[in-house]
This record gives sequence, structure tokens and C-alpha cells, in this order.
Amino acid sequence: MMEVAIFGAGRIGAIHAGNLVRQPGVRLKYVSDVNAQVAQELAARHGARAAAVNAALGDPAIGAVLIASSTDTHADLLLRAVAAGKAIFCEKPVDLTPAHARACAVAVAKARVTCMVGFQRRFDPTYEALKTRLAAGEIGDLEMLVVTSRDPGAPPASYLKNSGGIFKDMLIHDFDIFRWILDDEAISISAAGSCLSDPAIAAAGDIDSAAVTIRTRCGRLCQINTSRRAAYGYDQRFEVLGSMGLLQAGNHRPTEVVSSTAQNVSQDKPERFFLERYRAAYAREIAHFFDALVNGAEPRTTIGDGVKALELAEAAASSWRENRTVDLSQ
Amino acid sequence: MMEVAIFGAGRIGAIHAGNLVRQPGVRLKYVSDVNAQVAQELAARHGARAAAVNAALGDPAIGAVLIASSTDTHADLLLRAVAAGKAIFCEKPVDLTPAHARACAVAVAKARVTCMVGFQRRFDPTYEALKTRLAAGEIGDLEMLVVTSRDPGAPPASYLKNSGGIFKDMLIHDFDIFRWILDDEAISISAAGSCLSDPAIAAAGDIDSAAVTIRTRCGRLCQINTSRRAAYGYDQRFEVLGSMGLLQAGNHRPTEVVSSTAQNVSQDKPERFFLERYRAAYAREIAHFFDALVNGAEPRTTIGDGVKALELAEAAASSWRENRTVDLSQ
Amino acid sequence: MMEVAIFGAGRIGAIHAGNLVRQPGVRLKYVSDVNAQVAQELAARHGARAAAVNAALGDPAIGAVLIASSTDTHADLLLRAVAAGKAIFCEKPVDLTPAHARACAVAVAKARVTCMVGFQRRFDPTYEALKTRLAAGEIGDLEMLVVTSRDPGAPPASYLKNSGGIFKDMLIHDFDIFRWILDDEAISISAAGSCLSDPAIAAAGDIDSAAVTIRTRCGRLCQINTSRRAAYGYDQRFEVLGSMGLLQAGNHRPTEVVSSTAQNVSQDKPERFFLERYRAAYAREIAHFFDALVNGAEPRTTIGDGVKALELAEAAASSWRENRTVDLSQ
Amino acid sequence: MMEVAIFGAGRIGAIHAGNLVRQPGVRLKYVSDVNAQVAQELAARHGARAAAVNAALGDPAIGAVLIASSTDTHADLLLRAVAAGKAIFCEKPVDLTPAHARACAVAVAKARVTCMVGFQRRFDPTYEALKTRLAAGEIGDLEMLVVTSRDPGAPPASYLKNSGGIFKDMLIHDFDIFRWILDDEAISISAAGSCLSDPAIAAAGDIDSAAVTIRTRCGRLCQINTSRRAAYGYDQRFEVLGSMGLLQAGNHRPTEVVSSTAQNVSQDKPERFFLERYRAAYAREIAHFFDALVNGAEPRTTIGDGVKALELAEAAASSWRENRTVDLSQ
Repeated sequence: MMEVAIFGAGRIGAIHAGNLVRQPGVRLKYVSDVNAQVAQELAARHGARAAAVNAALGDPAIGAVLIASSTDTHADLLLRAVAAGKAIFCEKPVDLTPAHARACAVAVAKARVTCMVGFQRRFDPTYEALKTRLAAGEIGDLEMLVVTSRDPGAPPASYLKNSGGIFKDMLIHDFDIFRWILDDEAISISAAGSCLSDPAIAAAGDIDSAAVTIRTRCGRLCQINTSRRAAYGYDQRFEVLGSMGLLQAGNHRPTEVVSSTAQNVSQDKPERFFLERYRAAYAREIAHFFDALVNGAEPRTTIGDGVKALELAEAAASSWRENRTVDLSQ
Repeated sequence: MMEVAIFGAGRIGAIHAGNLVRQPGVRLKYVSDVNAQVAQELAARHGARAAAVNAALGDPAIGAVLIASSTDTHADLLLRAVAAGKAIFCEKPVDLTPAHARACAVAVAKARVTCMVGFQRRFDPTYEALKTRLAAGEIGDLEMLVVTSRDPGAPPASYLKNSGGIFKDMLIHDFDIFRWILDDEAISISAAGSCLSDPAIAAAGDIDSAAVTIRTRCGRLCQINTSRRAAYGYDQRFEVLGSMGLLQAGNHRPTEVVSSTAQNVSQDKPERFFLERYRAAYAREIAHFFDALVNGAEPRTTIGDGVKALELAEAAASSWRENRTVDLSQ
Repeated sequence: MMEVAIFGAGRIGAIHAGNLVRQPGVRLKYVSDVNAQVAQELAARHGARAAAVNAALGDPAIGAVLIASSTDTHADLLLRAVAAGKAIFCEKPVDLTPAHARACAVAVAKARVTCMVGFQRRFDPTYEALKTRLAAGEIGDLEMLVVTSRDPGAPPASYLKNSGGIFKDMLIHDFDIFRWILDDEAISISAAGSCLSDPAIAAAGDIDSAAVTIRTRCGRLCQINTSRRAAYGYDQRFEVLGSMGLLQAGNHRPTEVVSSTAQNVSQDKPERFFLERYRAAYAREIAHFFDALVNGAEPRTTIGDGVKALELAEAAASSWRENRTVDLSQ
Repeated sequence: MMEVAIFGAGRIGAIHAGNLVRQPGVRLKYVSDVNAQVAQELAARHGARAAAVNAALGDPAIGAVLIASSTDTHADLLLRAVAAGKAIFCEKPVDLTPAHARACAVAVAKARVTCMVGFQRRFDPTYEALKTRLAAGEIGDLEMLVVTSRDPGAPPASYLKNSGGIFKDMLIHDFDIFRWILDDEAISISAAGSCLSDPAIAAAGDIDSAAVTIRTRCGRLCQINTSRRAAYGYDQRFEVLGSMGLLQAGNHRPTEVVSSTAQNVSQDKPERFFLERYRAAYAREIAHFFDALVNGAEPRTTIGDGVKALELAEAAASSWRENRTVDLSQ
């Protein structure tokens, strides 16, 4: 039986807690949160105890920790967990500053602890099936990737201030998908952006619409388009063009009802937002983490992946601000 | 905390057990099965005990029983559970003989125990959304229902012998859907059938392909087509024509990958079979059962529904054997 | 150059005229209609002359006639054209009375003239491709056919009186599709019907909704469902289940625009009605007719097909009226 | 009756000829081609005469000319037609050199002749319906345009040499779609490219894959991705994100057959190439040209549009070659 602590009992922490208690041989022992009440409630729901981070890290029975607290605490908690020799599952991003994230990666490597970063999309059933089919050669050599990644609505301006900007907050997932799907690295990146939905976003120095183009070592091209506001829901699609065909990952819908009326023929909108769209992915990434621990295997999404995605986000932000193509070939 | 016993630890019993232990306030206490080893294993997986039926029914702490054993034992177990005053969830069919099923319904009514029959399709998210939209008047007055219900392959001949035939084994679900969706009753039924896939099915006195037409009290028409063998998976669709439009329930797919090659543009086949297609429905029907118990409400699928569906199956079988339209208007 | 006369200058006559003048080597010479004005206008549009039927049939330069007048005149014009030794394209139905249609077929056979009946659906690109793929064995042995055939709205009661009823007026096309797609003949037919949209239809002794089941010599099953009123347009679909899979013919849409809004994800309704849905089919059947003439080949849809479809319609109407399965095995 | 001459009797000239002879009140009088035999054949098919360009332009009965010859002859023929005072339909591009195209536009303006450029996509039924719905405000304010434009296979290297490169040869259509759909102008453009399918293309100084990003005066973003080789056919899609939703233009298919087998559920590939995909568009643009002439209206696609699209292609090519964002804001 592996005993586990969760740091952060908010929305995503609660989801991870619910998933991990279903893993055979895994037990949630501690929940920590800056809000003691919230920690207490989540702990109670799963027969665990609220505890301070230090207490949890100091308990030798704890084999792994899940870091699901606010972004600005990730790096600190991660380094303390490394020091305590715990296996770590850390929500993305590791940190908003690439140098900090790289320092964390170095610490993880030195300590030789297992550390998985929460890029849950790699565990989505549709994306994973698509990746498997790419690997099986179904469409030959890969040539182009087009990613459409749109949120159903902008978060409050207060959230945006600490978000790191659209490239680190939203596109970091898309940059990880890019690296994973093409199995290739960027040599140049170019980003354009606009603020079209809400002047408050511009006032916060951010944008709500972005268009990114990446060129890879192998000469492949990748285009990503993003918006904070898709009136029709959470739009999460990508397509890969290969020498022998095309593979597309489409949106998921809540139901398969089709309605035909005097107006049109219609289906459900895409799933509402990430909690619905990636429900299965969240469950599967947690299962993967504990499988990796049990089998001594490296997780599919490492802290190195976290660093790389963050570096792409940083480069894209520079490209947008400076209106130039950023060279990443060195 | 409600304590529960399951009778039958086979495939469907195991699914119900997995779902019920996730209900808040519900605890699995006993598992009974003719195969003690199987009962033991399922009980162990959920911290319950293997026990004889009598022991379970004799424990006053048991508030509800789930009957998921073989069909020929349903009626006996149900009557014993009624006598013991337990709430009952019973897998379909209640019995292969309508008279026996009716006797069970009478016993349930007399004892005033809650009894839900396992027509899980009514809890499928797609079907339930469609039903809600019908009730909201989206397509006006209902006029016609077309049901396509095909299994991915015939079961072994040994199974068929005790199945009650295609009408009671397969179409019983479709007859329940018919009653539920149209909220109407049959006044005539006509069935045609053939054995096209395997002579062993004909040798067992059964068919593998059936076409049923029902006319209702309100003059609506319903057509059901069924086959034991759909090479492309489990085909579960229906559509309702109304005065203002059409609502269709389509198949579910494992993923939303679309492949475009030199041959064609393709998607996944439908889900493999009922365990995959109705996974969510099985979870939701168990949640509904315990919700109904807690709230003192009548479950959505009563033993009366079980009797009605069985009577339609019996009438369809007569129509097929005697090659005539069966009048159900009295 | 083959010179041609058209009898009937109404809606469908005008379509045939427009299509035939595009055939290389074909010239429209005469147009006849009970309404001289209408004949004159259609003739003028294509550089032809209005003429009486007798004049057209008496002109030895006329090689072929197209009969597109009202149904009650088809048989008479056909027999006169046979007597004049002309090749004939005749709109369906040949006649509303099977005995008259059979007499026409006998006359055609005796005179050895080419006679094609206007079952245009066999020339629809989707249907034709599906038929070709069936013939190539794509889904193995055929087992079941399900036809959905719905009009966008009922014609005026005045039309219904001379229509021959829903089975001869609407389903005759579906009966032809049934014979063509399965390449098989009915041994029994059973029909149910209702009048749900407009009491005037019932008052005219007709129905607006029908459900037909056919069993074939080879034991295949076919279900046809029909309505006079589909609020969402002209619904023309069928699907064939075979031992190795399923082939479906879907509706055609005017455009491929997809709209995603806060309400839903929608596409165009199906094409409005038969003139739009079967525009290509009408053009292709006329091309086929003249190709057959030039090549001395038998057309794809013979007067024998017209007789068979009519006999099925007659049997279905009897089944409906007498509420019994009609045996066609002799 | 308007009499017309066609210059160029190749593939696209033949299509225009076939469409124009169906226009009421329009007559094809002359066909000119450098290959006299080809001119003769096309003329004969439509009851016209082969003639030299000078003869055609010198005939005062000729009201309009269609220029469908090779690209390098467009500007010269256009200027001669302008001098002769004829109305002009000119295939795109007007010229590969923007300065020459601009000179042609000046001449057209001075002479006040009608001149339409052959951007047939604006007449595609799907694109036109989408544009109409945008104009009606269905998705609110426009924010982003994503264009996918892929050919089914690269032309021979010999063709590429005189093509002007991928930006002028392929993307010119997409640049026109961009301007038309957003009703906005570019202020910056950035292009990346690769040669992935065939080294002969790189040897010719060209690329086969391109990714373009445009930012507009109103701050909208547009991404275009292109490939010379889509193994699955001619891929022609675009989507417009607005403040209230999304409108997508999907591919067209030859038929609506759906196949479900043990492998997957499949549909037809997209139409093979532009002649099939834009068949209706070619017919409608010719009808539009003659309608405009009759009504004295300006055609939907002017020579000014031709110049603007060419300038975008030129700027995109510069961006790609020089690896920088090109500023178009002056």
C-alpha cells in the first residue's frame, strides 16, 4: 500500500484526490491547503487527514506527493518534496520562470526521484489513440500539425494577473502536444496576438487571441491558433498531415443526440471546459503515475517536458512582444 | 449507511458491485453466488463477505438486494426478497414466463417494497437527454419511432437454449425503450424473422434477424430491426419523428479520431458491446436506485415495466411463429 | 441525330426537356400538353415545336418519346407509342391498376420496343455508388434493408384523390429500391399505417404514415418507414446490413457549412424536395436512356420493374386495409 | 444576344466555354489558342469558330472576352482587350509581377471597361452561404480565420518553373478568400515554408508546405496552412471564429455513402481536385459575369482584388525567403 499526500485541495486537487483513491494499492493519507477548512473537507471525503506540508513530508510512510496548489508555490513544494525523497506528481507549470523550472529539473535529476508533470492531454483517449496510430505509421512521415485550442471564456482579470500570460497559461499545453505528437523540437517560433474580447485583458498586458507558427529541426511546420473565448464551448482539436494521409483529433460531445428541425440539423456543443473534456485524461494520468512508480518506469510526462514547454511559451511571448521570429536553433 | 447484498457475482454482478460501492452512504455487505469461489473473490475486492442468500436475507441490517444471477433464478430470489421486506434491484428479465413475472409484480405491490428492474438504457446519457428534449416539446407531437438494435455477434448456441429466444433476450430492451420514449402502449404487433448467420441458431428454434412493427393506442408507429451480428460492433440507435422534427440517438465511439487516407475518411467503429456502450448507464441506474430509496420515490423502471416489456416480447414471438399480426387492444 | 417528343410539359416534363437537350446527338422536336400555352413555352425554350400527340407519333423522324404527363394518361400514351414503334421513356407509375400496367408490359414485349420507366433514384450518385459497392462484395451477403423515406409535407387533398394512395404514390419508389438493392423478390409483405398530420388525408381514405415489412425469397428482411411530413426537409436514406458490415446512403445537403454557437453545432437540413435531391439523378437517367438506345442495351429500369413495384404497392395497401400479412410466395 | 470570344482552349478554357454557352442571351463566337487544333475542337463542340486573337478583338459584334490562356499571356491579352473596349473575364493571376498587374488595373480603370478576375471560390455554394451568414451577423464580430488549403499532389517540376512559386500559384486563392471573408486588409504577414515531399521542388527554388500568419487592420488574425500533397484528396476548408460562434466550410464529397465494417466507419474522400470541387463555382462565376454585364454592375471579383491577392503572395514569399515578418501597414 502506497500512502500519498496532496498539496492543494482546490478544484484540480479534488479531482486528483478522487482519482487516486480508486488506484489499487494507493491510499490518500494527508491533504494540505492554505485554507484549512478546504483541506479538512477534502480529507474527510476520502478518509484522510488534513496536515501541514512539513508534517506530510516528514512522514516516512508517505511515498508520493501530488502538488496541485497555486502555481507560485509549485517550485518550492517540489524542491522540498525532492529533498524529502518523495516521488512527485506536479501540476503544470512547474514555474512561470524557465530558470526556476530548470533548477527544479536539475534537483529532480540529482535526487533521482520520479517526477511527473501534469500534461493530462497526453492521456486523453482520443489523443493517445491518435499518437499510437502515428507511431504505427498510418499516415507515413509527419509534415504538418495544426492545433486549435480555444477556451469557452476568459477568466476574471484578477486571475490573468498571476497567470503568466496566454502563452504560459493556455498555450503551454499546446506546446507540449506539439513536442509529443511530432516527436521533434522547434528551431524557430513566431507569434502574433490580439486582444479582441475584453479591454481589461489588454490593460493587464495580455492578449486573448494568438496565432503561433513553429518550424522544427526536421523542417515540419506547426500552426497553433488560440482564443480565450469560443462561444460554443471548449474547442480542442488538432490534425497531423503526413505523407500518406491526415489524422484529426475532434472535439468530444456530452451526448450523441442529433436534432433535425425546420432550422437545421444539430448536435451537442463540445464539452463545456477542461474538467469535462479531460475527465478521462485526469483519471488516466493518475493511474499512469502510480503504474510508473510501481514499475520503476519513467512517467510519460517528465519535468523535462515541463521545462521545454515553458521555454516555448517564453519564446512565443518574446516573438509576440518584439514582433519577430525567434531563433531556437542553438 | 445502507447495507446491501448482491446475488450473482458474474459479469453484470461485478459491474453493479463496482458501481454501488461508489454510492455515498451505501455499503456492500454480502455477495452470494452458486460458485462460492466467484462470490468470495468479488466480496474480497470490495471488503464484503460471501454469504448464502438466506443469511443475507435474514440479516435485518440489509436494506436492499441486487439480483444479478442467472435469469431462471430471478423470480424465486425476488419473491424471497419481497418476503424478507427488502428493497430490490432486479436484472431483466424478471422471468421468461409472463405469468410468473406478473405474479412477482403482484407480490411486490402487496408488500409495498421498492422494486426496480434493470433496464439500464433509460439511464444512458444520450437516451436520457433525448427523452428530456422530447418531453420539452422540441419536436412536437410524436409520430414514429425507428429502432436499430444489433449485437456484434451471436452468443454460443448453449446460451441461446436458455435465453428465451431473440424477442425476450434482445428485443426486451427495445420494447422497453419503445414504451418509455413514446409514453404509449401497443395495440398491435407484427414480427418477421430469419436465421441468416448460423444454422445452429435455427436448429435451436431461434432466429438471428427480426423486424417488428408496433401500432400504438394513439396511432403512432414503431419499427424495430435487430440482428445478432453486426460486423462493425454494437449498433444501438433510434430515432423519433415528431410533427416538428426528428431526434436521433446515435452510436457512441471510443475516440474522436478521424483518419483521411487514399482510401477514405474514417472514424472509430461504435463501442464494442453493451458493457462498453452502457458503462455510464449502469453507473447511473445504480445511483438512481439508491437515490429513489433515500427519497422514497418510485424508481424510473418498475417491475410493471418489466412485465410489459416481457408481454410485448411474448406477443412478438407469437406473431413471428404464427405469421400474423397480434392484437393487443384488449 | 435522334429526334424526340415529350408528352407533358409540367414540372417534371420541363426537367426532362432540359436534360435531354444536353445529350449529344439528341434533339427535342415536339412538346405536347393538354395546356397548349404550356407546351408552347417549353417548346420555345428549347427550339422545339408544340404539337399534338398524334402528329408527333406520326412523324417517322421521331425515334423516342418521353411520357411525363399526368398519371392517368400514361398507359394510353404508352400503348400508342408502342403502336407507333417508338422507344419510350415513361414516368412512374405506368398506371395505378396493376392489370393495366401488365397489359402495357405485354404490349412492349410483343412490339420489342425499348421502354424505360422513370425510377430516377437508381441513378442517384450516392445510391448508384452504394449498389456498386454491394455488388463488389464490400459487406458480404445481404441480410437486411432499412429504408427511411419522408416527404417534407403533404400535397393538397385534391392531389391525394388521384394519387392512388400513399403506397402507390410515395412507396412505389421505395419498393423499386428494395428490389434493386437486394436483387431479390418479396414473398410476404405487411403494412401498418396511420393518419397523424391532417384529418383531410384520412377523409380521403388515405394515410400519411406507413410502416412496411417485407420478407424475401432468400429470407432477407426489409423495413420501410414513410411519412408525408418531415419538418426538416426531404429525408431519403437507406441502409443495408450484410454479413461483413453496413452500407448507408445518407441525405444530401445544399452546402457544407457547419455552425457552432452557444446553442449547438449545426449543419444544413437535407435538400428541400425531390427536384433538388434528385437533380443529378434526373440528368443521369435521361443520359442512360439515350445511351441504352444508342447501344441497343436494355435500360436499367424496365417496364417490368414498374409492374413489380406497383404490385408491391397494391399488396401493401391490401395488407394495411385488411390488417394482415399478404403472402406473395406464389 | 451577346457574342463572346475565349482566348485559351485548354482545360479551364473548355470549362468556361461549357458554362458560357448555357447562359441565356450569350453566344460563343470565337475560340483562340496557340494550338490551332485545340481551338478548332473546342469551337466545333459549341458551334463557334477558331480565330486569331486580333480577328476576335477586331469584330465589333464581340462584347466580351474570356482570357483562359497561359499565365504569361494574361496581361498582354487583357491590355489588348481593354484597348478594343471589350468587357473582360480574366483567369487568375493577372500577372506574376505585381507592377504589371497594377498597370493592367490602371488601364482597366481608365478605359472604364468591366473586368472580372477568376477567383471562382467566392462563387462556391458553401463559401457563398458562409459569407452571407457572416454578413447577417450569425457569429457576431469576426476575430480569427483559419484556412486549410491542400492540393492532392504536386504538379510536375516543369509546371512549377513557370508557376511563380507556391505563394502566387496556390495561396493566391487563399489570400483572396482572406480578404473577402474578413472584409479587412493585412497589416503584417509572416510565412514559414518547407520542402518535404519532393527534392525536385526545392531544386526549383520552391517549397511544398507553407504556414502563413496575417494580422489585419482591425487586429484580426488569419492562419493559412498549405501543402502540395494531401494523400486523401483536395482539402479545402476554412473556419471563422467570431464573438458569438464559429462558421466552418467543410470539404465536399462525391457521395453520401457511409460504410461500417470490422475496420471502421468511413465516408468518401473529398472531391478529387479543383475541377470537381469547384464545378458549381465555375458555372456560377460565369453566370455572375454575364449578369453583371447585363445589369451594369461591378463584378464581385475585380482586377483590384487580383492585384491585392498578388501583393499578399509577393509579401508572403519575401517573408519566407528573408525569415521575417513583412510590414504592410503603410
